[in-house]
Amino acid sequence: MDDKSVPNIVVGRLPLYLRTLQLMNQEGRRVTSSQELGERLGISAAQIRKDLSQFGEFGKQGTGYSIDYLTDQLRQILHVNKVWDVAVVGIGDVGHALARYQGFTNRGFRIVLLFDNDRQKIGTKVGEYMIHDLSDLVKMIREAGVHIAMLSVPADHAQHVTDLLIEAGVRSILNYAPINISVPANVHVQYIDPVLHLQRMTYYQE
Amino acid sequence: MDDKSVPNIVVGRLPLYLRTLQLMNQEGRRVTSSQELGERLGISAAQIRKDLSQFGEFGKQGTGYSIDYLTDQLRQILHVNKVWDVAVVGIGDVGHALARYQGFTNRGFRIVLLFDNDRQKIGTKVGEYMIHDLSDLVKMIREAGVHIAMLSVPADHAQHVTDLLIEAGVRSILNYAPINISVPANVHVQYIDPVLHLQRMTYYQE
Repeated sequence: MDDKSVPNIVVGRLPLYLRTLQLMNQEGRRVTSSQELGERLGISAAQIRKDLSQFGEFGKQGTGYSIDYLTDQLRQILHVNKVWDVAVVGIGDVGHALARYQGFTNRGFRIVLLFDNDRQKIGTKVGEYMIHDLSDLVKMIREAGVHIAMLSVPADHAQHVTDLLIEAGVRSILNYAPINISVPANVHVQYIDPVLHLQRMTYYQE
Repeated sequence: MDDKSVPNIVVGRLPLYLRTLQLMNQEGRRVTSSQELGERLGISAAQIRKDLSQFGEFGKQGTGYSIDYLTDQLRQILHVNKVWDVAVVGIGDVGHALARYQGFTNRGFRIVLLFDNDRQKIGTKVGEYMIHDLSDLVKMIREAGVHIAMLSVPADHAQHVTDLLIEAGVRSILNYAPINISVPANVHVQYIDPVLHLQRMTYYQE
């Protein structure tokens, strides 16, 4: 599935660069440098230049990067120069927070479908979006042509819902359930589990 | 700050191993192997054996790992054989979801302090915990001896609140604000930004 030659770890840093450039743009800035990006991100300037050079020549020696231009290029490379529709499955506290999260705006994503299996929730709204019945998931996601989903169901439902999402044509899953899920080789999964991050820090604390 | 010789990337995998062992334990399992752990996690058995061997001998050739014993050992190594008190700053949708999240239980963390600067929220409760005034943060965190915080404030408040947390004695920050923060060398930061994960996947989608 990683059919391009750029290492995964480099791909993982590009969204960080894009986020920082978009913040600089909001600050009214026009030009930056690998040094400045590096200082904001705690990454060496040389690493940033090397990462970007895998995709082309984006700056001139001595004059730095045009923030607008590099932003556009990174949005193209990451395929977020369009807006992706996203489904959220599991509208508990986490799913609810995701459905209302303002941070997707202008970063390439918009939530369009919400699902839950709780009769009390089905038919109610979060913001402007109705919560739909989980049993309609495959049909509705297929019809809407949605390819990205966020999964915020309990751990013991995660694999079953994953199988439904794949049947529906989803190819990228952001999994908030604290469990690893199995997917075919052409489907991407990323995980968010705050406890993993916390434990990674307590290792260094006494 | 990373004063131990074990590489960061190895430390980052230990919480995954622990999570998987705890799930196996819930399933009533007693013994596992590096092969089985590897299959559940998409990591090679050799990598898992190599990671664990940095900390000691936890299994016997041919008989595998005792799930109870390895769980205990990993909890000690990660310092989650005790319960850490955690503060949450910024009780919007994300902070609210964190305050109510059930997934911290039995994994080493408990939320004990909530802060916001919104007069409408201060004095109200989320579950059993009162939301306190941000202006009392330094005093209250110091008195409570809390060393871990989750930051779910808007991006433009993140650095200011980070500075307060450090003044209060916090040494580990899980930052949900979509911006990089500066901290002294003895403070750890981990980041959660769903958009970074989503963009990492759209790179591979057309």
